[in-house]
Amino acid sequence: MTIEDPVALALSGERFAARCRIRADDAAAALVRAREICLEQTVEFPDALIPNTAIREQIVGAPDAPVAVGDGAWDVTIRYPVEAAGGELTQLLNVLFGNVALQPGVRLMDIALPPALAQGLPGPRFGIRGLRRLLDVHDRPLLCTALKPMGLSAPALAQLAYELALGGIDLIKDDHGLADQPFSPFAERVPRCAAAVARANQETGRRCLYLPNVTAPAAAVGPRARAARDSGAGGLLFCPGLAGFDAMRGLAADDDLALPILSHPALVGGLALSPDTGLSPRMLYGRLNRLAGADAAIFPHLGGRFAFSAADCRDIAAGCTDAMGDTAPIFPVPAGGMKLARVRELCEFYGRDCMLLIGGDLHALEPGEDLVSRCRRFVALAAG
Amino acid sequence: MTIEDPVALALSGERFAARCRIRADDAAAALVRAREICLEQTVEFPDALIPNTAIREQIVGAPDAPVAVGDGAWDVTIRYPVEAAGGELTQLLNVLFGNVALQPGVRLMDIALPPALAQGLPGPRFGIRGLRRLLDVHDRPLLCTALKPMGLSAPALAQLAYELALGGIDLIKDDHGLADQPFSPFAERVPRCAAAVARANQETGRRCLYLPNVTAPAAAVGPRARAARDSGAGGLLFCPGLAGFDAMRGLAADDDLALPILSHPALVGGLALSPDTGLSPRMLYGRLNRLAGADAAIFPHLGGRFAFSAADCRDIAAGCTDAMGDTAPIFPVPAGGMKLARVRELCEFYGRDCMLLIGGDLHALEPGEDLVSRCRRFVALAAG
Repeated sequence: MTIEDPVALALSGERFAARCRIRADDAAAALVRAREICLEQTVEFPDALIPNTAIREQIVGAPDAPVAVGDGAWDVTIRYPVEAAGGELTQLLNVLFGNVALQPGVRLMDIALPPALAQGLPGPRFGIRGLRRLLDVHDRPLLCTALKPMGLSAPALAQLAYELALGGIDLIKDDHGLADQPFSPFAERVPRCAAAVARANQETGRRCLYLPNVTAPAAAVGPRARAARDSGAGGLLFCPGLAGFDAMRGLAADDDLALPILSHPALVGGLALSPDTGLSPRMLYGRLNRLAGADAAIFPHLGGRFAFSAADCRDIAAGCTDAMGDTAPIFPVPAGGMKLARVRELCEFYGRDCMLLIGGDLHALEPGEDLVSRCRRFVALAAG
Repeated sequence: MTIEDPVALALSGERFAARCRIRADDAAAALVRAREICLEQTVEFPDALIPNTAIREQIVGAPDAPVAVGDGAWDVTIRYPVEAAGGELTQLLNVLFGNVALQPGVRLMDIALPPALAQGLPGPRFGIRGLRRLLDVHDRPLLCTALKPMGLSAPALAQLAYELALGGIDLIKDDHGLADQPFSPFAERVPRCAAAVARANQETGRRCLYLPNVTAPAAAVGPRARAARDSGAGGLLFCPGLAGFDAMRGLAADDDLALPILSHPALVGGLALSPDTGLSPRMLYGRLNRLAGADAAIFPHLGGRFAFSAADCRDIAAGCTDAMGDTAPIFPVPAGGMKLARVRELCEFYGRDCMLLIGGDLHALEPGEDLVSRCRRFVALAAG
């Protein structure tokens, strides 16, 4: 076949890399599969139909040699031209894993972006260092909790926020199920909770941040984020799986907002469940959140209400914190049913640079405790 | 525990339903799991910590009795208050499956929305009937193809579009990998391809539609869609898994655009891969796309480059077309490596009300064929 093209293709030759884990009988089969992925993610054409050599050489992904990783799996690093991503996060995700996400037996493990591509995706505005500076907390894990349960009114949530801030919590987020419901409308809840936290900060001299949930219909994300800032919110909670990774990137990149972002894995976390498909936990929770501007990434720690192993959790923490070009490291936020009784264990597992998120268990008061004193116990436990 | 709330909760009592498939040893265990889901998706609090009876009775999901479906699985319909969704697609998705998506052994099978909730989510603007009227094609499956491969220039893609339209294709979409890359910038490609299709329509007297890809960074979706309309595009291609389901809903609801939307499953299709987790194919491809305003839903038909079974494909078609309140039925679009040789089989499998998407195989010319004549063969095969 020939498709005549009056314009010659002349790309830079710079490439970004996707490491894929491929289930295969042997290295040769893994390479065959990798070559199919190279086509699937770019031209979506059988090799024989590619209309010219320039496209075959410059557009189609190129695989490195497969590396055995045991258990019938092979890691293959595939290199795609930076131009294929068009400088946009949506299309970068598409090339990395758009169609392949629908195929069993292949998982996206990690990525590496050259400066030409990473410059347009600077990632987190604050990261670990910036968020510590904002809070002026340097020597222990950060402590986070959620305003809940859904169904409380804005005044009741504000009272909770006040007590949690008084007790020494660093970041108080909306539960990710608080949106703009009639029992606690966004426009009423956010100013009340922000004011309550500000009042507590005046009493404690601390810098607790309130992070309202701005996961919202596409047209409402920006307006809610600006309303949150205007109300005195100190950060934002966002669920990129519900409202889009690029919407989160846009919030992070907005110089007028300049607020830290906590990312929650609702819905999209399902892409990291099966060991043979989807995205690795490290890729989804660590890399992708960093690329999309989150300063901290919530994920289910082992032994809670969810399913990760210790190795998964270590991988997620590494994906949040280890070298990724010029992209700042971010806080891993182990969560999903954590309890005060596990704070020391969590501190030992993750070290100092994590954010501990405890929700319900802060309300499981023991005799003689109130919410404020229980929060103070959380702080004392984390300080070690 | 008590959290004082000065405002009494008084919801309507109207509920929407999520049918979940739960892996469990027996009905009792399935019900225990369902009750956990009821809490997880609303209050995210242990039952004992729910601060008052009103929240327990009005906010928490309520399960019907489990129904055995064989293979150690049980279907449980869970009913959530409409107010929990706050009238927003993002939060509706969150209640339906936000956190549960991260847990193994449970799958969202189907949903049912009462009018109070469905009114705010009217779904597809055109649907099967509207799209047939637009195209004036009533008696056979609609025929779709993609402009590719990535790497061709805008003039070359426009020439392809002209020949494909001349050959009788009904809908010509951008390949979903065409975004705004330097080798074919959106602002150059879309007017050229739209003009090429209009020129072919003048020659044929037909109404072929060109659907550019407006999957884009959050802030660019609306502007690209309007630019597409202004250039004469007849519809839009969108990948809700890359750019958000609510962004697609917003495009469908935009009276100034009023263009049909073809939904592509990049990335999010991975949530329907495992039989024990995520969303059922019917739910993801059919229900969710309809709820989010797609007029046609691309999915991988069996025997192509992807993994669905015949039963999955029938379920997807049913999810696209069977009764869903006032929401219009939409076209199922079996795809993913389909060939001319399978057109009759596809027509028999899906009946008349489907859209057949053939990409690469239209370019696999046989001796004596050119692209125009091969398209005409596609039309003839589909006309039966």
